[in-house]
This record gives sequence, structure tokens and C-alpha cells, in this order.
Amino acid sequence: MFIEKDKLVHFSNECFMKLGMPEEEANTITEVMLEADLREIHSHGFLRLPIYIERIQKGLISSKANISMINNHGATALMDGNYSAGQVVAKEAMEKSIAMSEESGLGLVAVKNSNHFGITAYYSLMAAKQDKIGIVISNVAPLMPAIGGKEKVIGNNPISIAAPSVNEPIVLDMALSNTAFGKILFHKENNKEIPADWGVDRNGVPTTNPEDIINGGFLSPVGGPKGFGLAVMAEILTGILSGGDFSKMIPSMYDTENKQSISHFMLTIDIKKLIPLEVYYSSIEKLTGFIKNSSKADGVKDIYLPGEIEFMKERANKTRGIPLEENLKEQLDELANELKIQKLIIQ
Amino acid sequence: MFIEKDKLVHFSNECFMKLGMPEEEANTITEVMLEADLREIHSHGFLRLPIYIERIQKGLISSKANISMINNHGATALMDGNYSAGQVVAKEAMEKSIAMSEESGLGLVAVKNSNHFGITAYYSLMAAKQDKIGIVISNVAPLMPAIGGKEKVIGNNPISIAAPSVNEPIVLDMALSNTAFGKILFHKENNKEIPADWGVDRNGVPTTNPEDIINGGFLSPVGGPKGFGLAVMAEILTGILSGGDFSKMIPSMYDTENKQSISHFMLTIDIKKLIPLEVYYSSIEKLTGFIKNSSKADGVKDIYLPGEIEFMKERANKTRGIPLEENLKEQLDELANELKIQKLIIQ
Repeated sequence: MFIEKDKLVHFSNECFMKLGMPEEEANTITEVMLEADLREIHSHGFLRLPIYIERIQKGLISSKANISMINNHGATALMDGNYSAGQVVAKEAMEKSIAMSEESGLGLVAVKNSNHFGITAYYSLMAAKQDKIGIVISNVAPLMPAIGGKEKVIGNNPISIAAPSVNEPIVLDMALSNTAFGKILFHKENNKEIPADWGVDRNGVPTTNPEDIINGGFLSPVGGPKGFGLAVMAEILTGILSGGDFSKMIPSMYDTENKQSISHFMLTIDIKKLIPLEVYYSSIEKLTGFIKNSSKADGVKDIYLPGEIEFMKERANKTRGIPLEENLKEQLDELANELKIQKLIIQ
Repeated sequence: MFIEKDKLVHFSNECFMKLGMPEEEANTITEVMLEADLREIHSHGFLRLPIYIERIQKGLISSKANISMINNHGATALMDGNYSAGQVVAKEAMEKSIAMSEESGLGLVAVKNSNHFGITAYYSLMAAKQDKIGIVISNVAPLMPAIGGKEKVIGNNPISIAAPSVNEPIVLDMALSNTAFGKILFHKENNKEIPADWGVDRNGVPTTNPEDIINGGFLSPVGGPKGFGLAVMAEILTGILSGGDFSKMIPSMYDTENKQSISHFMLTIDIKKLIPLEVYYSSIEKLTGFIKNSSKADGVKDIYLPGEIEFMKERANKTRGIPLEENLKEQLDELANELKIQKLIIQ
């Protein structure tokens, strides 16, 4: 089923505001979830609304943001999210990072005590829409073992880099596991083997049987030691550089007994401080041409730039409506009952 | 055979100086090659001496550095290497980046018209040895096709991130192809199949036969679209952000008819501008403990941090001497004959 985006936005805002959240903050969280669903990164879309609401109800995420700047010299700033909603904290931090880059050419905001902030590309794109390059990293609860390990010690920490281009920005947004857990489930349901580098079993041994991952196994980092190394450096640039929590200190988002202290790294580069924007855009157009017009492999119709497919989906979904799974619709109905607000009506 | 590092340093410096290079510059190039061989990244060690010499002889790399600062505001600077040796340019750029970070908390030097600069970790480690985090990226001649392509459009652009730690720094240094070409050759020689994600054949189709890669095929990016995306963003942060060359504009280093214009991105973060160094080091010690002491998979004795194995090799090779292949010794003897300098003597 498909639902008009305005209805979903209204419903989501109502949920947050019912818990005492100011409209502007509710709207920020909703907007980031909407962006995820429009881009068909459904794992970070309205699927997360019930858990966000539960965490706010339990006092694990503040219903009113209380963000403080711990220090701010030159091109760097350290921000304490004080357990406010991750989207609200990260948006404010990225605005600050962009503003600093306009002064110094660069702006870095390190953030601690934040929460899950949705899709990383939302924030890097804020920079790219203003003729700047945005580099955003977050840590998450540990999910992967070290190379040779069989215990979760490192998150599949997402990294997004967005650069403006002649049309839509070029944007990379990736988690550092080789694949998502959902794909493991999909292979199991279809009785298919998985590639040996997607995960390891409970003993830390690579496996092609999806059930071995589901029953106590682990996802593996993308590209083995390369992805593991990137995940470790991402943890240092987020949890450690901000003076926040990291690795095994961070409980799962679905552990509703404990607060999460999530850290972000938000860097902006103001392109025009280095080269004239005309030079930048003409080079980007040339690079785009080299890539998109390069010889195609047998059977391939189009070559895509990073993020290009997501922009195509976004355009389609903006007019057609947001795809909504039956199961999620039921969860949202339950939420409406619990919060005593009007259910989403699908025509 | 093993050779004392001092002998190799002397020999290498003699080669460059014979071509009119000032001793300090010769020493910088030598030092970066030495560091590579000590860390057993032999692909970037003295193996490259003959091609560097040939490029200097042909005027493709200047025998005397002529580096100019195009602009420098706040935390950013743009440098023109004017086709000087990559190591000399990159070392100077990283020194500038570190100095700027001491003022502004961050320092970014974008460099154009440089050359191959050896191992990327050499420069990121300059920052890590001074209580700072270094992030260094370079572009290289295109080597990989786009996802779905069968034409070289993007380099396996190296990225290094180094962060200080209680003992040696934690350092990631990786190229963005799934594997190195040398490993493909090794599998062919041993009649072994390669994993299907290491490369594609001349038609852009994934293959497990190493000969398909060698005969007109291509290396694939690490983790497929993730590595490709990172390689594209790395190209933007280097060739495009510096106003330099990129993608198909860059000829191979072994094409001795044409100059290469290589670009670098050198970013330093001064940790103490964000958090006290004591807090940083105590967190790093904790993270290191979480990772190294995590449960090990069956048969695994030790878990290593990024760069740890290379530091162990470096320690061993510093006392034992540098491993030198017969074939490379012959090439260095030829070079000695040609330049009329004394050959390396192995005892």
C-alpha cells in the first residue's frame, strides 16, 4: 500500500507532540524518517517510529532537546546532546559545522550523548545543498566482531559523504557491514546460500548458511580487514574524539532499559575557499561524464553515481506516495490506539 | 636476502642526487620507500626506485621541488606541487596541515600537480605522532571500472587514517580495490581460483579465473558499490577539490611519455582542541582493550588493531634488515651501472 507523504508527516508529528515534544523538533525527526522512506532506505524510515516513541516514553530520549556547546574554537566545536533526539541534535550540529566552514573553510562538530539520528545522508546533504562537501559519521551499538573474533565489539558505523554536483548531489551513504541483517533473513526465507564474506557463525567461522548468522552468529565488515579498519577509525572519530561512549559501552537501541550515548562526527568543507565554484562544477560535470558514459558490461543499461538510484526513487515516491508494509501499518495503528490519536487512513 | 637499511638509504639517496636532486629531497623520497619496505608494503618500497629515477630523467618529475601555495585562508590551503616528487610535496603539505590544526583545530591542505607519494600512512602518521588525527587521501591513475562498467574510470585511491594510541598509533592504510594485482598473479601461478568479487573480465563480467583479469580484465572495488562509492568520493576530495586532474585525465605512472598530475587531500584534527589528551588516551586504551581482549574465533591466537601487524614487521625488519628480492637487486644493479654509482653490496 502507498500513503501520501503529508498524511504520514502529520501522523508522525502528532505522536511526538502527544509526548510533549515541541512541534519543530517533532518535525525534524519526521522529516529525516520521511527522507529515508522516500529514498527507500526503509530500515531507517517510519519503521523506527514505534521504538523512538517507546524510548521517549521511558525517558531514554528527552522529549525536549537540551543541547549544549561544550567548547568552540576556530574550526572545531564539541556539542553535548544530553540525550535529546539524535535527529534534532545532528541537524543543529550540522548547521553549526556549515556555519563554521563559512568562516574557516572547514567546520567540524564532534557530538556526544546523542541518539540514533536516522539516515546519515540527511546531514551530509545539508552541506551539499549549500555548495559544500559534507562528511558525516556516527557510531552505533557494537554489531560486528573484530577480524578473528566472535564477540560484538564494533558498530557497522555509517559514513556519508555528499558533494554538490550539476544536478543532484553525489552522495555515498553506507554502513560498514558487508550486508544488512535483512538480507540474511531474505536468503534464509528463500533457502539460499550467502556469500562466505557476509558473516561468521557463533564460533567466528565464515559460513554460507544464513541460519548460522541468525542463530548467534555475526555480520562481517565490508571487505574484511578494510571495513573493520574503517569501522575502528569511525569509532575513534565519533565516540572517542567527542569524549563519549564507544564499542561495548553502547547498549542496543532496542534495549529499552538503558540510555544510548551515540556520537557523531560532522565535517563541512567550504569548496569556494579552495577553488572557484565554476571550476568545481565544471570538473564534477566532467567526472560524471567519464563515469556515466564509460563502456558498459554485457547486459548493463545504465551506470549510476553514488546516491543516484536513491534520488530516482525519491522522485517517484514523492508523487506516488510512500510504500508502507501491512505489518508496519498495524504497528502504527497500535501506536495510535496507545497514544489516543487518529489512525492513519489509507484510501 | 636481507640488506641493512643504512646501505639501502645511502644507495637510494645517491641515485637521486646523481640527477641533481638536493640531499634533503632525496632523503624524503628514500625515507618514505624505506618505511614501506620496513612495513612490508613492498609494492611501495624500493621497487619503485627505478621508475622514479626514469621519470626524473625524462623530466616528468622535477629533480628540484618547486612547490607554491596558491591560497591559504583559515583552516584550508591549496598547494601546487608543480610536478615535484610526490613525497616531497606531500610531506610539506602535511606539515602545513598540522601547523594549521594547531591554530584552528583543523587543517586541510588540498594539493594538485603532485606525483605518486608512496605509502599514504607515512603522512597520516606524521599527525598521529604529534597527538593529532591525520586523514590522507590520494588519487591515482584509473584502474577500476564503475559498477556495471568495463572501462577504467576510477583509481583504487588510497585512504589512510591514523590516530595516536598509548603505544604505536592505530593506522588504517588501504587502497579501494578488493585486492592487489599481485595477488591475482599469485593465484594464477598457483593455478588457484579467485573469489568472484576480486575482478571482472574484459566484458565486465565477474570471474573466478585469474587469467581473465590479467588478459584485459579489471580489479573490482572493495565491497562492490561501497568501495566504488568511496573511490568516487576520494576522487572528488583530491582531484576535483584541488582543481587538479582526475579519472581518465591521469596517465599511468609507467607511461613514461606523459606527466602525471596527482592530487592529495591532507587533513589534520588537533585532538586537544576538542577534549583533553588524558581523556583521549584513556578512551583509546579502553577501546584497544575491548578489541584485543574480545573472544577469539576457533584457532585464532591474536586479534590485531589496524596497522598493528605492520608495526610488528617494522620492528623485526629494523634489526634484521630489509627483505630484498633477487629480481629487484638486479634492477638496482642495472640502475647503479646506468647512473655510474656504486652497487649495493650484500654481505
